[in-house]
Amino acid sequence: MSEPLVIIGNYISPYVRKVLVCLELKGIDYRIDPIAPFVGDEEFSRLSPLRRVPVLRDGDFVLNDSTVICEYLQDRFPQPSLYPADPVMRAKARWLEEYADSYLGDVIIWRMFFQQGVRRFLFNEGSNDEVVRKAREEELPVALDYLESLVPVEGWLFGDLSIADISIASFFRNAAFVRYQIDDARWPKTAAFVSRVLQLAAFQKLAEYENRTIRTPLAQQREVLADMGAPLTETSCGNAAPRYGVMRLG
Amino acid sequence: MSEPLVIIGNYISPYVRKVLVCLELKGIDYRIDPIAPFVGDEEFSRLSPLRRVPVLRDGDFVLNDSTVICEYLQDRFPQPSLYPADPVMRAKARWLEEYADSYLGDVIIWRMFFQQGVRRFLFNEGSNDEVVRKAREEELPVALDYLESLVPVEGWLFGDLSIADISIASFFRNAAFVRYQIDDARWPKTAAFVSRVLQLAAFQKLAEYENRTIRTPLAQQREVLADMGAPLTETSCGNAAPRYGVMRLG
Repeated sequence: MSEPLVIIGNYISPYVRKVLVCLELKGIDYRIDPIAPFVGDEEFSRLSPLRRVPVLRDGDFVLNDSTVICEYLQDRFPQPSLYPADPVMRAKARWLEEYADSYLGDVIIWRMFFQQGVRRFLFNEGSNDEVVRKAREEELPVALDYLESLVPVEGWLFGDLSIADISIASFFRNAAFVRYQIDDARWPKTAAFVSRVLQLAAFQKLAEYENRTIRTPLAQQREVLADMGAPLTETSCGNAAPRYGVMRLG
Repeated sequence: MSEPLVIIGNYISPYVRKVLVCLELKGIDYRIDPIAPFVGDEEFSRLSPLRRVPVLRDGDFVLNDSTVICEYLQDRFPQPSLYPADPVMRAKARWLEEYADSYLGDVIIWRMFFQQGVRRFLFNEGSNDEVVRKAREEELPVALDYLESLVPVEGWLFGDLSIADISIASFFRNAAFVRYQIDDARWPKTAAFVSRVLQLAAFQKLAEYENRTIRTPLAQQREVLADMGAPLTETSCGNAAPRYGVMRLG
């Protein structure tokens, strides 16, 4: 491979984060066009039919969907493997990735992060307090009870680190952006597990870009990230209008 | 393998259909507990944390999510392969499966089939005509334009038959239940492609059970399917209350 891979999508997205962590862990050279999906231009619509991030470009090949992209990275760059070798373990890891993408995505991203972060600060709209309350007090606890029955006291879910550990932690990183912390008296194993995954060098490296991104207006994010040495693409398929505010930690 | 695999989920679900077609094509012995998710009992909630169908049981191993189940079947029973060998082709096939599961699922299942079939006939509720109109006249045509740019004039999307062909056709089978036919003047390649996939013996075999299921009240479906010789499980984790009506072709 001569050209670096390209990822389109903002550091704040948990779906983008999953893919970036896989790239980091596999030591694959990449560049990032860190746009928010709602500022994508016509080129972005062409590359992403559902206008979702992340998008992967590998030369002329364009691929959508974080789950599909992670599988592709595994097929194309098998080592280190992020999928268990045993078919049953691999299936369980894929299921937990799907559970994170769908259930944790609905609750943490759409009912907490979007309401308390994006709507409130970026779009200057009110948040729906009842949606947020239900998410934090009822829906997320259901997931935490389920995860508490599965996660190990030490190490990772399926022996070696896998896509399941990465996916689950990626979503709880966004919960932290809106000041949600897992109660370690009620869910001690899950609190320690998520903290352990987020301590990995790959997550820590990305956290620096995430922390700056979330405090910077959309229109200035590329410039700020460039100053930090983030591996940016030369061109962008986003149009960050200055009217968007700054995302503040809610 | 001594015990047959078990699938929990109704013949009418496109997500169940995907899995059943994979089982049929791979010649794997299975039994089915053909419940609708909303009549699942406590046991069903335990087996399916998100109360979705299909659920796979392979001995003591329980697995959720149609995409994850199909990958597991492929890993456990590799021949005939339903995933392209080339990583780029495999990624494209997985993307189209995801596109079908998410976009075609939203439009065909939730905005057409659910409104015009399930709500109207099974639950005896009104359908939202504007939702249905927009789905049929605006949202589904967007998908058909996209598919028309991808599907081949003959044969399958990626050489041999794959999960992509199976997934796309599975959803259009549900569109036919609410009398939606792809306009073959406007989308000639897609109309012919979907028809070609649905002619496969695996789809045709399932179609007989689907056609009877959709004309039978929920509470009598097991009995009627048993009389037809469907490969039913001995026990069920569903409680089909007699108050549900008959699903009629809308």
